[in-house]
Amino acid sequence: MATENRNPEIRKDAVNNRLVILSPARSRRPSDFKSKSQSKSDSNPTSNGQPQCPFCAGNEHQCAPEIFRFPEDSTSDWKVRVIENLYPALSRQLQVDNEEHSQANGSTGEASLGGFGFHDVVIESPVHSVHLQDLSPAGIAVVLLSYKKRIEQLCAVESISYIQVFKNHGASAGASMSHSHSQILALPVIPTIASNRLNTMKEHHNQTGKCSLCSINTHKLLIYESTHFTSISPFASTFPFETWIVPRYHSSHYHQLDEDKAFDLGGILKLTLEKLSLQLNDPPYNLMIHTSPLHIVSSELPYTHWYIQIVPQLSTIGGFEMGTGCYINPVFPEDAAKILREVKLP
Amino acid sequence: MATENRNPEIRKDAVNNRLVILSPARSRRPSDFKSKSQSKSDSNPTSNGQPQCPFCAGNEHQCAPEIFRFPEDSTSDWKVRVIENLYPALSRQLQVDNEEHSQANGSTGEASLGGFGFHDVVIESPVHSVHLQDLSPAGIAVVLLSYKKRIEQLCAVESISYIQVFKNHGASAGASMSHSHSQILALPVIPTIASNRLNTMKEHHNQTGKCSLCSINTHKLLIYESTHFTSISPFASTFPFETWIVPRYHSSHYHQLDEDKAFDLGGILKLTLEKLSLQLNDPPYNLMIHTSPLHIVSSELPYTHWYIQIVPQLSTIGGFEMGTGCYINPVFPEDAAKILREVKLP
Ligand SMILES: Nc1ncnc2c1ncn2[C@@H]1O[C@H](COP(=O)(O)OP(=O)(O)O[C@H]2O[C@H](CO)[C@@H](O)[C@H](O)[C@H]2O)[C@@H](O)[C@H]1O
Ligand SMILES: Nc1ncnc2c1ncn2[C@@H]1O[C@H](COP(=O)(O)OP(=O)(O)O[C@H]2O[C@H](CO)[C@@H](O)[C@H](O)[C@H]2O)[C@@H](O)[C@H]1O
Repeated sequence: MATENRNPEIRKDAVNNRLVILSPARSRRPSDFKSKSQSKSDSNPTSNGQPQCPFCAGNEHQCAPEIFRFPEDSTSDWKVRVIENLYPALSRQLQVDNEEHSQANGSTGEASLGGFGFHDVVIESPVHSVHLQDLSPAGIAVVLLSYKKRIEQLCAVESISYIQVFKNHGASAGASMSHSHSQILALPVIPTIASNRLNTMKEHHNQTGKCSLCSINTHKLLIYESTHFTSISPFASTFPFETWIVPRYHSSHYHQLDEDKAFDLGGILKLTLEKLSLQLNDPPYNLMIHTSPLHIVSSELPYTHWYIQIVPQLSTIGGFEMGTGCYINPVFPEDAAKILREVKLP
Repeated sequence: MATENRNPEIRKDAVNNRLVILSPARSRRPSDFKSKSQSKSDSNPTSNGQPQCPFCAGNEHQCAPEIFRFPEDSTSDWKVRVIENLYPALSRQLQVDNEEHSQANGSTGEASLGGFGFHDVVIESPVHSVHLQDLSPAGIAVVLLSYKKRIEQLCAVESISYIQVFKNHGASAGASMSHSHSQILALPVIPTIASNRLNTMKEHHNQTGKCSLCSINTHKLLIYESTHFTSISPFASTFPFETWIVPRYHSSHYHQLDEDKAFDLGGILKLTLEKLSLQLNDPPYNLMIHTSPLHIVSSELPYTHWYIQIVPQLSTIGGFEMGTGCYINPVFPEDAAKILREVKLP
């Protein structure tokens, strides 16, 4: 691509305030390690459906307790199940008063808190071989509305401050289970990336009177637009082909999503995942829903705006990114957007 | 290990203010993906020394221009070479006035800057099969003093704000070249992790009058102590077996290192890498030198303190970490420190 000869550029946006180095020349560097077989999202599961996979229909008894299923009164014909994670990162049993349980060492400045929280798994399909993007827009909407329902339940727990919905697809994206699923982690603290985002968007609002995501730049960066959502390559893309799906209406919290919009989102999410899959040969990917902390005050509502981030995992980061938090991305988002815009779905 | 039954805990320290979830239960979760062959830092180079590897002695002509070598007047018997990166992330040619070249879009809040900077490679040995930890303490000191010398040269470039020294060892740690080397990237901006660290250490200093790293907690976390340095598992370890080497004397900038201390650091770095290698079966790893921005003012000197971070790459992160910046670490640092303390070197 001629674009490989472009000069490098350092960018940041008004959402995350995260630096990225766009450097097309980097894509030409050689490697003397044998290349990893980037086969079909490295999905070589040893279990190919029943009987070994606990997430398959018929194996519900191998799972941690169910929280709910959809449809509610279904038996073996469920579409989506939300269950407890059998190996939770945070413990729902640890119903401690966090104030009491938190320890801070004044002289070293170290602080710790009991690991209270909720860690759930959303099984997106009863069938092992069906992935999220294989579902119909309405089928994806059921998954999206399950997130909403579970978040609404977790909102009732006073000490929960933030809820992270995420999906790992493929082993190089961190997945340990190949059956299509996502996870919901409810935290007693607001994580750094969420509070940074809040601060950045607040500052932009103070300066311009606008929400950064309502006025986001789609010029040259647009992939697709549906009735309520826009799919774009973000201006300061951290990773090659990073993609955001942003509501075109102003909304602080993901769980404000209604059925109508969920259906529309199901459609644009399916289309976006299919384009990425076709262009990048079914890559491993991570999907994150970036929403606002639960207990924000009304003055924060005008500048907080949820969105979905999709990151195909195409390479391994190194010490520079770990050390600085600044990523080197060889693909300009304008180029990624153009390529994805032009991908023709069958 | 009995420690797997410990309750999860959320921690942060007074250096990075980064949240981590310590959750031993997570280490028990199964995977239905075929496990990656974690063989000997996945070093299956296709070139095994000369003639294909440009970093091997004899192949200097295949490399980008040399900046200096050690010893200065050596010919084929050099010990360390510092060269330009042939595929630089930032361009040293782009000698633009950054003020002029920087663009900010007021209404979208997006900002960009010409990608000016320096990207060098430090070849740590003339021999393909000799890795950093295989060198003698004096041999490692030569590498460490090469970093110092190059940083001092780069300090002379006024528009450089921060210098990141890092090393990728093994393909899963991002390395594309198997010959032992590290990299130096000089940036025209201060990256997020460095400015966060500065802010966190400043706040701790305001509250306690102390430098966070001078008063760092070594209780239960100590791995080894040399005359001038301490090797520890940090209180809020982001990764299993993450290790820091911290100067026991107060020093803001890495490049203040003198020959005496470089020799001592060479020894403790060798020992630390050997312990990690023996315990974790020669894992891929990243090494980062965290120093202070170049142009700090004298009031910042009392609370800035450089250190080295070593991260063995033992697992793949997922959407939770990408979305929140908060890592899930199944190994308590107290346990990692105890294990590493007890590793007996042959
Ligand atoms: N029978 C059962 N019943 C209920 N739950 C079951 C179960 N068997 C397995 N599980 C759970 O199912 C989940 C599957 O999740 P993923 O495949 O998305 O990745 P995982 O969470 O393992 O780790 C990835 O994601 C996390 C979070 O981003 C990273 O910390 C990590 O490094 C990365 O590998 C696991 O969390 C597991 O505990
Ligand atoms: N003949 C030659 N002369 C001079 N230089 C040569 C050369 N041949 C190759 N090089 C350079 O040598 C370097 C080797 O570096 P590493 O193996 O540590 O990882 P690399 O920088 O490729 O990427 C890893 O580190 C970076 C930074 O952390 C991440 O962005 C990336 O994802 C990760 O894979 C490369 O940067 C390459 O450009």
